Amino acid sequence: MKIPPVKGTRDFYPADMRIRNFIIDGWKKVSLRNGFEEYDGPIFEYLQMYQLKSGDEIAEQLFNLVDRGGRELAIRPEITPTLARMVNQQINSLPRPIKWFSVPRLCRAERPQKGRLREFFQWNIDVIGVEDEIADAEVIFCALDYLQAVGLTSNDIVVKISSRAMLAEVLAVIGIEKEQLNAVYSVLDKRSKIPEDAFIEMLMTCITDSNKRADVIKLMSVKSFEEIASIIKSNEKIDAALGQLRKLFEILDTMGVSDFCQFDIGIVRGLAYYTGIVFEIFDKKAELRAIGGGGRYDDLLKTFGGPAIPATGFGIGDCVLGIILEEKGLLGQASKNSRTQYFAACVDQKYFAKAVELTSKLRRKGISVALNYKVGNLGKQLKQVSAQNAEKCLIIGSEIESGQVAVKNMTDGTQQLISIDDLLI
Amino acid sequence: MKIPPVKGTRDFYPADMRIRNFIIDGWKKVSLRNGFEEYDGPIFEYLQMYQLKSGDEIAEQLFNLVDRGGRELAIRPEITPTLARMVNQQINSLPRPIKWFSVPRLCRAERPQKGRLREFFQWNIDVIGVEDEIADAEVIFCALDYLQAVGLTSNDIVVKISSRAMLAEVLAVIGIEKEQLNAVYSVLDKRSKIPEDAFIEMLMTCITDSNKRADVIKLMSVKSFEEIASIIKSNEKIDAALGQLRKLFEILDTMGVSDFCQFDIGIVRGLAYYTGIVFEIFDKKAELRAIGGGGRYDDLLKTFGGPAIPATGFGIGDCVLGIILEEKGLLGQASKNSRTQYFAACVDQKYFAKAVELTSKLRRKGISVALNYKVGNLGKQLKQVSAQNAEKCLIIGSEIESGQVAVKNMTDGTQQLISIDDLLI
Repeated sequence: MKIPPVKGTRDFYPADMRIRNFIIDGWKKVSLRNGFEEYDGPIFEYLQMYQLKSGDEIAEQLFNLVDRGGRELAIRPEITPTLARMVNQQINSLPRPIKWFSVPRLCRAERPQKGRLREFFQWNIDVIGVEDEIADAEVIFCALDYLQAVGLTSNDIVVKISSRAMLAEVLAVIGIEKEQLNAVYSVLDKRSKIPEDAFIEMLMTCITDSNKRADVIKLMSVKSFEEIASIIKSNEKIDAALGQLRKLFEILDTMGVSDFCQFDIGIVRGLAYYTGIVFEIFDKKAELRAIGGGGRYDDLLKTFGGPAIPATGFGIGDCVLGIILEEKGLLGQASKNSRTQYFAACVDQKYFAKAVELTSKLRRKGISVALNYKVGNLGKQLKQVSAQNAEKCLIIGSEIESGQVAVKNMTDGTQQLISIDDLLI
Repeated sequence: MKIPPVKGTRDFYPADMRIRNFIIDGWKKVSLRNGFEEYDGPIFEYLQMYQLKSGDEIAEQLFNLVDRGGRELAIRPEITPTLARMVNQQINSLPRPIKWFSVPRLCRAERPQKGRLREFFQWNIDVIGVEDEIADAEVIFCALDYLQAVGLTSNDIVVKISSRAMLAEVLAVIGIEKEQLNAVYSVLDKRSKIPEDAFIEMLMTCITDSNKRADVIKLMSVKSFEEIASIIKSNEKIDAALGQLRKLFEILDTMGVSDFCQFDIGIVRGLAYYTGIVFEIFDKKAELRAIGGGGRYDDLLKTFGGPAIPATGFGIGDCVLGIILEEKGLLGQASKNSRTQYFAACVDQKYFAKAVELTSKLRRKGISVALNYKVGNLGKQLKQVSAQNAEKCLIIGSEIESGQVAVKNMTDGTQQLISIDDLLI
């Protein structure tokens, strides 16, 4: 009976796991230094939670299950609904702003392809309770802090930023009805992912008036948000949304990350719940889908039965990121971080009990030791030390009778006799 | 719309998450220092994998799902089948012994109760490819290394050890048929969890002969494995199994953990796949189910379509362990490990951009800073510093004009002016 893994999932053998840990540990470290606290929820929630909020694309990709009590559940495809549920549950006792992060395992029944799997990990950062653009800026800074920490520069990646609030108002001025907005967003979101004529064709199905369509196409060609006022007649709401963008870019400049950031009116985001500033992070070669993205979702907590509280956040998955880090040769750090300190090689069966004793004592001191069960030929054992990526080899032989062991440094090949007492200090 | 979490699952708010991380990070650290490498598999596998191997108890507790391709899947209730699948898949390229660990999230549709939930985390340690008792001993040592590291002593916990191989042979001598063995194991496994008369009653249903039953009851009362030979006529296989136990206890003594270990013929383990040494770890007050347990499963890889390779391992869940650590006051370490270094308090709006700039630079140096968005009254802000568990408060005021900030140590209350350049070194 040989059973394969399920399509679209991954097995993490130790070498793969080191990479996964390198990525996720980095996310955690940067989140903490940016003042975020970690949270998590269950791997499944009531199905209803996702049907009501996430929008059609995600609802179609759910892994549903029915438990023995007849409850309709789904494995989580994103963690934002869980976040909204948890925050609403304790809304009166949680000090604000709520600055939380999570690194959930998520599942979506998508067609597996490069950078897109059925099971993946996603870094989520959220600030809840702050209307000011400082929150959006901190969220973007945090993503860039991580991406820079792993070695990516402004030559490699770009954060494209726009505003749903601005877009909604501008589309209203152009004459798009409120009821059409979600359909138009969905088409605009696909613009950079499909050929120009396919985009125009899709646009025709949801905007039948050719003048309006021409205005929208013209709008999508602006290169800066200052240009917008030259295309359409501005109003108070548009001015306010443009003011928010302007302020956001100012703060990002103060934070020292403006090199990475640019306005891009094509950034709309697929999910239904965004209300204000939205952004996506891309590899500049732009061969893959976005590394991640996010934005403001000021109405979501209310949708989940809570009060109206402003919120902003992002998600970055491990699949596209992993491909980019690998392509750029930035994954070498993963194996360095996980070296074993000692490989214990015993050269004679009569000293094996001593080897076991010494190994146990070292481990309890917090020192990592791989004990080789196969006693004997040192040459053979030394070959294994490199395979195990150990820094030093402890050679346990007759010297142990006078309380000493030979320690071989595997980097420079030097070897010296050290007393066990000194090793255990 | 207010949706609750699903019964038997947990929400991990930041305070809960710190405890979960404290437990899981400890598992990882101790695994690595004991020479184990981390692996993981998908959250779901083909349903068949669990139906064929885990035994009835687990098969009844599965969360099943059918994906859009009609595949019958289940959320993993344990990770050992995944381990067997992964090892078999690369059996020819993996260097042996395989010493792997994992900290999977698992789901079982059990009735939730104290120390038993529908979703939990489980530390798994396995050594594959070693017949010698050194492997069983290392596995037990590793569990004890962790439990001691978090502060538990031999006054708190005990490892109860027995041998399925020995038990099988002794039961054969008593006259129990091979076909009855699994049923008898299942009853013996329940002995310490149910009243004596309920146990006798259950035993009557699977052993009808009263003489045999009396022998089994007598057998279950032995206090040491040396006593066994005085009850039944030993044979070569029994002697071999007793020799393995004797050798295991010798190695555990060499490792310095014999204080924690005792023979207990009542340890049988519920799962069907154990073949040799088996053990369970208990709180000495014994009010809860086992903290964890494990043993040798030499036939499992073969069952999964691979070669016959010896294997041994254990699993320790986070629920019972968490309760014990809490009861003994050993969870205080969890919050200490996660302090923020600085809380940045800006006392005047005109310096806020400077506060943002300094915060960003410190974070990029790897220093954790919680930036307070609310500018103004210092007294109010200082109250928040303690709530946020920060070590020091950076007070950004007029001194910033001459490149300085006041740093208040929240532990001893002292305060001093420090130049920004010194902070950023």
